Amino acid sequence: MTSDAFQDFYPDDLSHCYGCGRLNEHGLQIKSRWEGDEAVCTFTPQPFHTAIPGYVYGGLIASLIDCHSTGTAAAAAYRQDGRALGTEPAFRFLTASLHVNYRKPTPLGVPLEIRATVKEIKGRKVVVTSRLLAEGQECANGEVVAVQVPQNLMPGQG
Amino acid sequence: MTSDAFQDFYPDDLSHCYGCGRLNEHGLQIKSRWEGDEAVCTFTPQPFHTAIPGYVYGGLIASLIDCHSTGTAAAAAYRQDGRALGTEPAFRFLTASLHVNYRKPTPLGVPLEIRATVKEIKGRKVVVTSRLLAEGQECANGEVVAVQVPQNLMPGQG
Repeated sequence: MTSDAFQDFYPDDLSHCYGCGRLNEHGLQIKSRWEGDEAVCTFTPQPFHTAIPGYVYGGLIASLIDCHSTGTAAAAAYRQDGRALGTEPAFRFLTASLHVNYRKPTPLGVPLEIRATVKEIKGRKVVVTSRLLAEGQECANGEVVAVQVPQNLMPGQG
Repeated sequence: MTSDAFQDFYPDDLSHCYGCGRLNEHGLQIKSRWEGDEAVCTFTPQPFHTAIPGYVYGGLIASLIDCHSTGTAAAAAYRQDGRALGTEPAFRFLTASLHVNYRKPTPLGVPLEIRATVKEIKGRKVVVTSRLLAEGQECANGEVVAVQVPQNLMPGQG
């Protein structure tokens, strides 16, 4: 069962991110949803998102893992607070560190699925681990340490 | 003193990468050059390469560090072999792992400089560390483990 996409609840001012902002017309506009305790994002790269011919660019994989993980961190914070996505005050996370292991070349031309799990949630910090799958095979995995955006960096609050 | 860009010597078949391929018209087309023992890349993000307003998207930072590091790995392999860039057989590296620490928000609208150093070179593996600077401030740093592209993935060799 799928639920609403996390990113659709970001406030407009926080919806310009190249990876996940629904208002960034040049961007990837990824969507992440809960499936039980896993957060899932499906994304099909464009032909130009290539590294060597036939395979997906690693920087795109890093970008997908990055934004899916910060989205998952925000959704997990809402869950822990017992609040619905999009209720005030808004949760929005930045990446403190990103680690990606490229386990095998990721084929281009098929949908990629990124499945994330919350490893730790403590104060303003959430650690999210994820796997990137193509045709059922794990091609990469990642770990993101996400921290809540400081209030002075939130648009309209600076 | 600057020298020729590493990526300008990649064979055509290996020049379609979204991050560094000179033949990818949708891509970033980064350029990396030696400055002594450091490899340097300068890149000015587009306005749409944003995370939260005014700051650079972390996935772009990861992409820059990724491609600059694999380019540096290839150039270091040529140096170690005592060969000029672009001589045959071509060296081309893929990313085995990528780690990025985001130390502070990276301002949008100014040139970014990524300065990389070869930490280790052993067999088919090169470890590259790097710092990303904006206006002289280190905003992120990274470590990439790069491995030489297996012969069966090299275009025309499969």
